[in-house]
Amino acid sequence: MEKMILGISASPRKDANTDILLETALKAAEETQGILTKTVFLRDYEIHPCDSCFACCTPAAEKNGGERACLMFRDGMDQLYPKLLACDALIIATPVYFGSMCGQAKCFMDRTEGLLRYGTSRYKNALQHKVGGAIAVGGNRNAGEEFSIQAIHYFMHVQDMIVVGSGGERTPGCYLGGAGTTWPQKGQVRDAVRQDELGLKSSANLGRNVAQVLMMLK
Amino acid sequence: MEKMILGISASPRKDANTDILLETALKAAEETQGILTKTVFLRDYEIHPCDSCFACCTPAAEKNGGERACLMFRDGMDQLYPKLLACDALIIATPVYFGSMCGQAKCFMDRTEGLLRYGTSRYKNALQHKVGGAIAVGGNRNAGEEFSIQAIHYFMHVQDMIVVGSGGERTPGCYLGGAGTTWPQKGQVRDAVRQDELGLKSSANLGRNVAQVLMMLK
Amino acid sequence: MEKMILGISASPRKDANTDILLETALKAAEETQGILTKTVFLRDYEIHPCDSCFACCTPAAEKNGGERACLMFRDGMDQLYPKLLACDALIIATPVYFGSMCGQAKCFMDRTEGLLRYGTSRYKNALQHKVGGAIAVGGNRNAGEEFSIQAIHYFMHVQDMIVVGSGGERTPGCYLGGAGTTWPQKGQVRDAVRQDELGLKSSANLGRNVAQVLMMLK
Amino acid sequence: MEKMILGISASPRKDANTDILLETALKAAEETQGILTKTVFLRDYEIHPCDSCFACCTPAAEKNGGERACLMFRDGMDQLYPKLLACDALIIATPVYFGSMCGQAKCFMDRTEGLLRYGTSRYKNALQHKVGGAIAVGGNRNAGEEFSIQAIHYFMHVQDMIVVGSGGERTPGCYLGGAGTTWPQKGQVRDAVRQDELGLKSSANLGRNVAQVLMMLK
Repeated sequence: MEKMILGISASPRKDANTDILLETALKAAEETQGILTKTVFLRDYEIHPCDSCFACCTPAAEKNGGERACLMFRDGMDQLYPKLLACDALIIATPVYFGSMCGQAKCFMDRTEGLLRYGTSRYKNALQHKVGGAIAVGGNRNAGEEFSIQAIHYFMHVQDMIVVGSGGERTPGCYLGGAGTTWPQKGQVRDAVRQDELGLKSSANLGRNVAQVLMMLK
Repeated sequence: MEKMILGISASPRKDANTDILLETALKAAEETQGILTKTVFLRDYEIHPCDSCFACCTPAAEKNGGERACLMFRDGMDQLYPKLLACDALIIATPVYFGSMCGQAKCFMDRTEGLLRYGTSRYKNALQHKVGGAIAVGGNRNAGEEFSIQAIHYFMHVQDMIVVGSGGERTPGCYLGGAGTTWPQKGQVRDAVRQDELGLKSSANLGRNVAQVLMMLK
Repeated sequence: MEKMILGISASPRKDANTDILLETALKAAEETQGILTKTVFLRDYEIHPCDSCFACCTPAAEKNGGERACLMFRDGMDQLYPKLLACDALIIATPVYFGSMCGQAKCFMDRTEGLLRYGTSRYKNALQHKVGGAIAVGGNRNAGEEFSIQAIHYFMHVQDMIVVGSGGERTPGCYLGGAGTTWPQKGQVRDAVRQDELGLKSSANLGRNVAQVLMMLK
Repeated sequence: MEKMILGISASPRKDANTDILLETALKAAEETQGILTKTVFLRDYEIHPCDSCFACCTPAAEKNGGERACLMFRDGMDQLYPKLLACDALIIATPVYFGSMCGQAKCFMDRTEGLLRYGTSRYKNALQHKVGGAIAVGGNRNAGEEFSIQAIHYFMHVQDMIVVGSGGERTPGCYLGGAGTTWPQKGQVRDAVRQDELGLKSSANLGRNVAQVLMMLK
């Protein structure tokens, strides 16, 4: 049976480091027979920050078959909710800004309140017990890669997902997920991560591990 | 000599839990002679997410006296940069969404790239060696309060600030900063933190500690 | 087919808060048909801190069928390694000391180097792709419960485990695992966690979730 | 007026990577006029794990002038408590084991309960409002350096210290503290961190920053 991994890139920059590592992970995942992948780029969607109105968790969200995971905003999330519901696993990739995931990544996550256990639309528990992994790439070397991955893991645990890392080889370089850096290059280094052996390897390891654990699930 | 603590609330909800804890911290800080406080609410400003263009760190940002910490967007940040430059200490308060600070808080932080050590405007190093503290309030009890404070601390360390917590009394209940929760109340509990003794106390402790350390600095 | 969850309590205090929450988790896990549990208490074993000699990852550890996961110390770990190898899932419970797991918990973990991917004894990859969950209980309320669980998760990711949390009900109170506190009681409050509704509930939720995910695996 | 920075190395290995980075930090700190440094190596002391008896926080600890910060164990901590009381700042350096500080470092910290705000000996509040910084060195690259530093910072916040990082130069590579790695070298690489430009630089930056903030305090 085929299973689908959804990759989500939160980078505002097209074809740059974050996209490269995500693509690396998904390609490695596809080596496992039966794995399909899709990618979405958050920059292609308008996503309004959550206003914490909680309407998604009230009876109002049950109307019309509970078709809307957010009642407040009609924006790009309307296209993303069905993709989250349809996938079997999730890999989220973010650039590191100020030690943690970028604001765009966080705004996306905050809008998935309606997918939680107390949501009332048909998207309730959309991510529960799906496999999750994370990738982060920073302009400095030990400067938020770990913490950004942990922040994504936190989101995944809130969504009751099954969280896996990237540690499955002899000298993995990192364990939590894909961790890349453009350091010691400076400034706007669009694709410097192509020279970062560990960033590429750990991202590929993560993709393989997500695929492998996905296939271990009944 | 008077010193100014700037409080920043990232909550989209007016007068709700996050605002209440921030106000509690600032009032406690004002008990120390010589301390003044100001508060800004991020919801009152339009803040575009950072596009990672790095123009703020190029010679282009030096023009006209380096008056602009961001060259890309003309939005609410233009009013916030001078406040960050002028303050002596910073207390940032956020609601907890999905285990970490809300997207609005992160989008604000991401736009302070030009304040870093490699910025080129007059806002370069605006926050260096200023005192910083953090407050988080969550709808669940052990569900991101610590991690959100650590995420704010990470921002503060990137900005080379001096970071302090809230531990200065016999049974503080928490140490990293102000930590409040509306649990076990459910749903949109606008001001339930008023019943959270520890949230109020730890926020007041944080305010007092920020003030005290500020006065210890030459 | 029956599956075994191994519970490990790191508390130096017998029958106290940490033991209580671990027992709560394991009992809840046993509600799932086919789940068996065992518990070990680290205080019953002498465990020498790791000296980082790396002998466990050299050809020397392959001798005699690779029966020893540590070549340096003959102590309680000799009894614990086979239990780690035999289990299908692991729940580790720790008291919170200074914001993180207790030293006893960490000394135990450090001695599992020989179980990693580059180990050379028969214990190599002993924990790979086993399910893991964590419990922490603190004397203050928001004071290391989250961080201690994350520290245990980090160990589990290094061991290439599948990490799950406790979020599977409507208002879970926390998500990362079992999180208990004896606050606002003071001093040596041996079993105060029995009055901590959330600590008990989140630990039970964790146990159920570990059992459930274990049964989802082929 | 002279001020003293106490460096603490938690590595079990003499003259190896952790010691090297700590020495690098302390030498850089001594460039600031008026700064003196001392170093202790935890491996030179026998340190029993804390049994959580809380005697250090009872009237029993007040006897005989409150000379003992721990009533339970007569071991190496008796020599370390006076050093903690006497110093003006603290830099703690640890090797990374399983994503976090080594067990030896944690056992040391756990034994400082009597220094907290509710201690009853003369060591009560021994570390309050002293400056703190952290160093971590790992065998993999993004594999616990950040998290270990955050774990040390957590200890420092519990002790009500003033926490600073290492970010004070144009391209610091990391911000939280000194972060070194011996990756991609493998096995027991005793002094490989001498080839790690960033590990050396960030540790020196941390030392300078601790010294600088110490001199900013009245």
